[in-house]
Amino acid sequence: MAHIDLGFDEKEWPGITGLMRYRPETAGPLQALADALLRAPNSLPAGERELIAAYVSALNDCAFCRDSHSAVAAARLEPGMALVEQVRADPETAPIPPKLRALLRIAAAVREDGRAVTPALVEAARAAGATDVEVHDTVLIAAAFAMFNRYVDGLGTHAPDDPAAHAASARRIIEFGYAGRRP
Amino acid sequence: MAHIDLGFDEKEWPGITGLMRYRPETAGPLQALADALLRAPNSLPAGERELIAAYVSALNDCAFCRDSHSAVAAARLEPGMALVEQVRADPETAPIPPKLRALLRIAAAVREDGRAVTPALVEAARAAGATDVEVHDTVLIAAAFAMFNRYVDGLGTHAPDDPAAHAASARRIIEFGYAGRRP
Repeated sequence: MAHIDLGFDEKEWPGITGLMRYRPETAGPLQALADALLRAPNSLPAGERELIAAYVSALNDCAFCRDSHSAVAAARLEPGMALVEQVRADPETAPIPPKLRALLRIAAAVREDGRAVTPALVEAARAAGATDVEVHDTVLIAAAFAMFNRYVDGLGTHAPDDPAAHAASARRIIEFGYAGRRP
Repeated sequence: MAHIDLGFDEKEWPGITGLMRYRPETAGPLQALADALLRAPNSLPAGERELIAAYVSALNDCAFCRDSHSAVAAARLEPGMALVEQVRADPETAPIPPKLRALLRIAAAVREDGRAVTPALVEAARAAGATDVEVHDTVLIAAAFAMFNRYVDGLGTHAPDDPAAHAASARRIIEFGYAGRRP
């Protein structure tokens, strides 16, 4: 049960969705940030950005964010959830392009501590073809999920254990965006 | 030196200010979030919210965020920087109200891991007079600085070592807000 009284059924509004309904003043900027990072036009495909979000959330053991962003990544990438699970299990052996692997290494460092990002990690990503904007966005996605994961778990929100619910939510997010996920 | 080429003198645009100039697409939501959390009308005084931000940033050892939000907290609270430094050194013995001390304990837990926030920590804050919205906002401020700290340090930005520069920036933030800090 959530640590605060949201005033409505938290099973109907799991994870961050209930917190956003509870506090619209902060929901607006958070949704705009998610759309800018994960959905806006970018040289990094949206599916790869969602994969970074799912990977960081899995490292932080935040069930709601891990499962919801895994569902979006799976819907956006071929071959779907099998690839997402391989990346979450071990990005070093998962069948992904070297550039994405180098960016996932940067994301794992950010998740630990910003100061763990070394010039060598950034140079390796550049050598694999990453642009400065892609490095920037990877750092900010990983940092943003350090926030989202702590927000969702720090208030003790409900995490549904139903892959079908996450898949349905992923379809709404892909169609309407984070600001419009509950139209 | 920053890990990416910002395209301008990073000493003129230290810490997050350079990253916001570099990537206006994400700067907008980040500035709106900072204004909603730290400046918008709230039963928690803005100085206390800035103190939570400075405290978490000090725990994360992020020099730019620690020094800039300490300067804003010092400008907003009596007796200024002496109090901020006492809180950063040890909130348990600093001369602050019990409610703020209880909220700082929650912030320290969030900084570690969202799951470290226990019902007992939340109950203690409530017993000291905290509302549910104040608990919510404390969790989100601490979570947001898990992001801001990683963003600023993960990209290796410049942190000025000049208290006068932070004090001048604090005056601009208090007058114009985070979205208008460089008018």
